[in-house]
Amino acid sequence: MKNDKITSKDVDFAKWYTDIVTAAKLVSYSEVKGCNIILPNGYAIWEEMQKGLDKSFKSTGHKNVYMPLLIPESLLNKESELVSGFAPEVAWVTHGGDKELEEKLCIRPTSETLFSDYYSKVVKSYRDLPLKYNQWCNVLRWEKETRPFLRGREFLWQEGHTVHENSIEAEKETRDILEIYKKFFTDYLAIPVITGRKTEKEKFAGAEYTLTVEALMYNGVCLQSATSHYFGQKFSKSYDIKFLNRENNYEYAYQTSWGTTTRMIGAVIMVHADDLGLVLPPNIAPTKVCIIPIGTDEKVSSVTTTISEKLAKENISYMVDDSDKTPGFKFAESEVNGIPVRIEIGKRDLENNTITMVRRDTLEHISVSLDEDIMALINKLLLDIQRNLYNKAKSRMESMTFEAKTIEDFKNIINTQPGFIKSSWCGKRECEDKIKEINGIKSRCILENEELTSSKCPVCGEEAKEEVVWGIQY
Amino acid sequence: MKNDKITSKDVDFAKWYTDIVTAAKLVSYSEVKGCNIILPNGYAIWEEMQKGLDKSFKSTGHKNVYMPLLIPESLLNKESELVSGFAPEVAWVTHGGDKELEEKLCIRPTSETLFSDYYSKVVKSYRDLPLKYNQWCNVLRWEKETRPFLRGREFLWQEGHTVHENSIEAEKETRDILEIYKKFFTDYLAIPVITGRKTEKEKFAGAEYTLTVEALMYNGVCLQSATSHYFGQKFSKSYDIKFLNRENNYEYAYQTSWGTTTRMIGAVIMVHADDLGLVLPPNIAPTKVCIIPIGTDEKVSSVTTTISEKLAKENISYMVDDSDKTPGFKFAESEVNGIPVRIEIGKRDLENNTITMVRRDTLEHISVSLDEDIMALINKLLLDIQRNLYNKAKSRMESMTFEAKTIEDFKNIINTQPGFIKSSWCGKRECEDKIKEINGIKSRCILENEELTSSKCPVCGEEAKEEVVWGIQY
Repeated sequence: MKNDKITSKDVDFAKWYTDIVTAAKLVSYSEVKGCNIILPNGYAIWEEMQKGLDKSFKSTGHKNVYMPLLIPESLLNKESELVSGFAPEVAWVTHGGDKELEEKLCIRPTSETLFSDYYSKVVKSYRDLPLKYNQWCNVLRWEKETRPFLRGREFLWQEGHTVHENSIEAEKETRDILEIYKKFFTDYLAIPVITGRKTEKEKFAGAEYTLTVEALMYNGVCLQSATSHYFGQKFSKSYDIKFLNRENNYEYAYQTSWGTTTRMIGAVIMVHADDLGLVLPPNIAPTKVCIIPIGTDEKVSSVTTTISEKLAKENISYMVDDSDKTPGFKFAESEVNGIPVRIEIGKRDLENNTITMVRRDTLEHISVSLDEDIMALINKLLLDIQRNLYNKAKSRMESMTFEAKTIEDFKNIINTQPGFIKSSWCGKRECEDKIKEINGIKSRCILENEELTSSKCPVCGEEAKEEVVWGIQY
Repeated sequence: MKNDKITSKDVDFAKWYTDIVTAAKLVSYSEVKGCNIILPNGYAIWEEMQKGLDKSFKSTGHKNVYMPLLIPESLLNKESELVSGFAPEVAWVTHGGDKELEEKLCIRPTSETLFSDYYSKVVKSYRDLPLKYNQWCNVLRWEKETRPFLRGREFLWQEGHTVHENSIEAEKETRDILEIYKKFFTDYLAIPVITGRKTEKEKFAGAEYTLTVEALMYNGVCLQSATSHYFGQKFSKSYDIKFLNRENNYEYAYQTSWGTTTRMIGAVIMVHADDLGLVLPPNIAPTKVCIIPIGTDEKVSSVTTTISEKLAKENISYMVDDSDKTPGFKFAESEVNGIPVRIEIGKRDLENNTITMVRRDTLEHISVSLDEDIMALINKLLLDIQRNLYNKAKSRMESMTFEAKTIEDFKNIINTQPGFIKSSWCGKRECEDKIKEINGIKSRCILENEELTSSKCPVCGEEAKEEVVWGIQY
């Protein structure tokens, strides 16, 4: 049944996206551009994401902290590359109460400066290392273009910041975190990703290198979904984080930082949702099952109660929609909200000793006898849905991954069907810039241990050294 | 064993407090006054507090959301009482990037304005009500005096904001939340509290009335620890939150708000900690048991492993300190960190088939045979400690609760031993002001269903109408 509040995604993808965000009550707009209200349906998904990632961070020895919101201008200025990267987009606090401040304070766009300043005070010896801290917080970036979840002036994220006694350990951390993100996208969000290293042009300001998780949206546009940066000694030199190493010499420490944001909610929408609304992978669905009793029959309520109690006992999150809306309205609402499994309990079905289960991913209706093991079926269904969503997204990503050996190839692909474009590259910035000129394609990442598509750079024709994925980005 | 980094609480309570905060690694200072870094040990306690309260809020039908950090000046100005209460202490953002903003934006000191603005857009009918939202976030208040956890320019808190179709329901919400807070203080934080209504002078700007949870610190100073406000229709009139009621008439909605902050960590310190460090009630201790193996004997490691595995299986949080520090250092550290139970596993004890358990609250050493049910003993010990901490704090509070019938009584109490001072009151603002003149004593709350201490107001001598608790406040 078509939802008339949602534009078809094949007609107008951008409109479809904002329709979903509104219809599923994920976000509402506030009076300040780019600073959105995250509504209960949206925030509950974020809480599931936090739970999943936080567990992985903690089980690998990371600890949560909270750094201040405000950064003095002088502290921010210590790391010149970071400043030039962020200065145009920070918000400045100039007054406290009715007094002008002696030094203006910026609202954190990210917290490298604060962590580094703190580390410079407490790291004295290799015995103090490693320090592996993370924080969940809000950040602000004064973006011109904004879109719910994808690009906001204020957004929520986690940012990990670690210090190590040598580069081997710090680089291992950078990679371990990339793996945590990749696993989270695959196993929780049911989103297949590619990972690799950003080019010098696209890396984080101030990093030695940036590793990235890149996902492909339904419309072929790429989304940078999580990043893990290796800083080497760049920040430690700017912020004077020195320690006595095992050889009893002073040495600058080795750092990393890594983060992911509420943007992940945008990715889940643009990979899985359809024209009826959200489609949530069971592993991050705040409500996994929606029970809709049809009518007020006594048998209907008793079966509803029995199944509810079993779900509660099995720790499967569920809701019962016993409001006075029509069944049709309730069905549509559970679909808009993307709840993985709907159970319809009606008098007529019960006469045949059955209930109906509906999968959100395929909309398949399954008639189930009450004599069956309902909980086993639900658990199997949730697993199936999770797996099916991943497989569907993976096939789509594969079918939208192209190879380009020439500039002409790039143009043809972009003009017919955007996606991930694999191409070999000589490594020169000029050639990267040139490819960007073509329809705004940016490099997504340099693939590792990957065969070259071609022996020559498609721009300059010189020897290709690296295999790179390119694409249009959000 | 005295900790030489901690001043004795009976010598200099203020110094003792900051020593504890530093020695237990709860907080570190940042470059911006009043904006502190919450370190892993501090943040882990906050996470336990969040978990406990969040569960209570959700189980009573509240949903989490996220409102923006920034409030346009014009929106803030809509509620005049709120503005006059907060204007002197908000921080203003005037620039985004290098451009001056058209309208300056304040960093939220609290979010009534944002919630009310949102509610005005979505509340149309009594069918939309109630809306019971909460958020966990950071807020900023440009305070002059700041102290870690007790008063900060930036702090973390939760703020609940609800809308109802009538005053009965909204007032019930105000009281239900007060009960949730009270229960949390009693059952989790092991802190006895008094609750009641704030006077007109002390209530929240813009509220019809404010209910409050007040706790008494070790030194007799009072701490306002959580508040629950009934707004009636005050905000709904300023922000135009109108709905069609059951009689099909337009009516302004009824609202509440309520909050508590990281200040609770300050309360836990000032009620339970001693000269050796923190003392954490087991119900909010991030780590409940610290195992210290003494020496490298094989039997020592095997018993350590056995007990660790049992704790993990029972879901009791624990740590094993197998670092190369001396046992004495480790004992002291577990004491500074306030871990409720310490288990010392040493070769000599094991020769007698025993281990030693040490309670953090009483420092009592208990020799335990390995033949006993160790897990049952630990569980019992954790319960005992929780109960003992509450009972100790309760006796102290009772012994520091005084009655004043005259102005002289007030003076004597304050000069000898501050605490909660119960006194009857005529209800007039002038008399309240007069009592404040005496050593800065403020009213804490008006007690409900309480017998009057005296039939006359101690200031004016007129008929007393209410029983009020007074005290020095943080």
